[in-house]
Amino acid sequence: MTSANPKIISFIGADRGPWKIASSSAVRGEGLSFATHLDIVRGPSNEPYPEGAWTLQAVISNLRYTTRDEKSKLDKDSRALGQPEFDAGAFIPIRKSAAWWALTQDERRKIFEEDSKHIATSAKYLSYISRQLHHSRDLGGEFDFLTWFEFSAGHVDQFDELCYALRKTKEWEFVEREVEVKLVRNA
Amino acid sequence: MTSANPKIISFIGADRGPWKIASSSAVRGEGLSFATHLDIVRGPSNEPYPEGAWTLQAVISNLRYTTRDEKSKLDKDSRALGQPEFDAGAFIPIRKSAAWWALTQDERRKIFEEDSKHIATSAKYLSYISRQLHHSRDLGGEFDFLTWFEFSAGHVDQFDELCYALRKTKEWEFVEREVEVKLVRNA
Repeated sequence: MTSANPKIISFIGADRGPWKIASSSAVRGEGLSFATHLDIVRGPSNEPYPEGAWTLQAVISNLRYTTRDEKSKLDKDSRALGQPEFDAGAFIPIRKSAAWWALTQDERRKIFEEDSKHIATSAKYLSYISRQLHHSRDLGGEFDFLTWFEFSAGHVDQFDELCYALRKTKEWEFVEREVEVKLVRNA
Repeated sequence: MTSANPKIISFIGADRGPWKIASSSAVRGEGLSFATHLDIVRGPSNEPYPEGAWTLQAVISNLRYTTRDEKSKLDKDSRALGQPEFDAGAFIPIRKSAAWWALTQDERRKIFEEDSKHIATSAKYLSYISRQLHHSRDLGGEFDFLTWFEFSAGHVDQFDELCYALRKTKEWEFVEREVEVKLVRNA
């Protein structure tokens, strides 16, 4: 009786896939089990992966905090994923606390942007770090968000700088689990 | 590899369940197929229902528009579902248009409350019409929301008045499918 969700995107840590896992670090809370590659499948995956492989699923959803003015600025600088020079990437699953989700919309927005400058800080990096947010909280998984980034290996320091800046914010006080999976695109 | 969503609530139009279907009307777009009863199951349902039964699934999620001030007022007047005198109910699945979902958060909030007074209008009825919003858009179903209302049969006119008021709003210009299923609790 349960129909499959056609919006699902599966991120699979296994022994194959277009991205090699260069490192996997538990930033907060439990990490992810060892895998050599990350595979990405549109829709639920029924392929047999080896024992120990993990699958995290999410969907691309509507904007939750961004205003029209902010979106116009972001769109001007953003580049599509999949640029030929994007040979590096990062996959960062995040779960926020129950306290975060109990906040009202205005309270979350204030912490997200007015206090933490999540959009303003990220915007500075957009011309060379492309990203896609995936939502998973309503899907009942282990994480609330699966965030995805692509950039050229020459910009890894800037990517680390962006992560460092965000992790110091008030918003991040509500992050209770975060794993940083650094990736290198298969040659 | 796909794990079940523990947050899922299934609404099943079939031949049994705690609520009798008094009427089912397509307010906009396609209706739902005929059923005599509505069953509600926490989690995915694996029970065999007769051919023609329909299942709609959703989850209870975080607030998307309500501010702290609004929530405080709403909470003061709200009553829990399941009051003994609530012998009537309504189940109203709704899908909004792609144009709605392409709006930014500030644009949706403005239409939702400043223009359409969704919260302010609903608040007037809260002391005798209890409700629960369920989200289904990220689950990839036919509807974006499954809305649920309970009240006493003596208040059905007020419930209809509330629906009438909301359906005249600017927000409702973005509703592209809506079915109103009126219910009577089994004696």
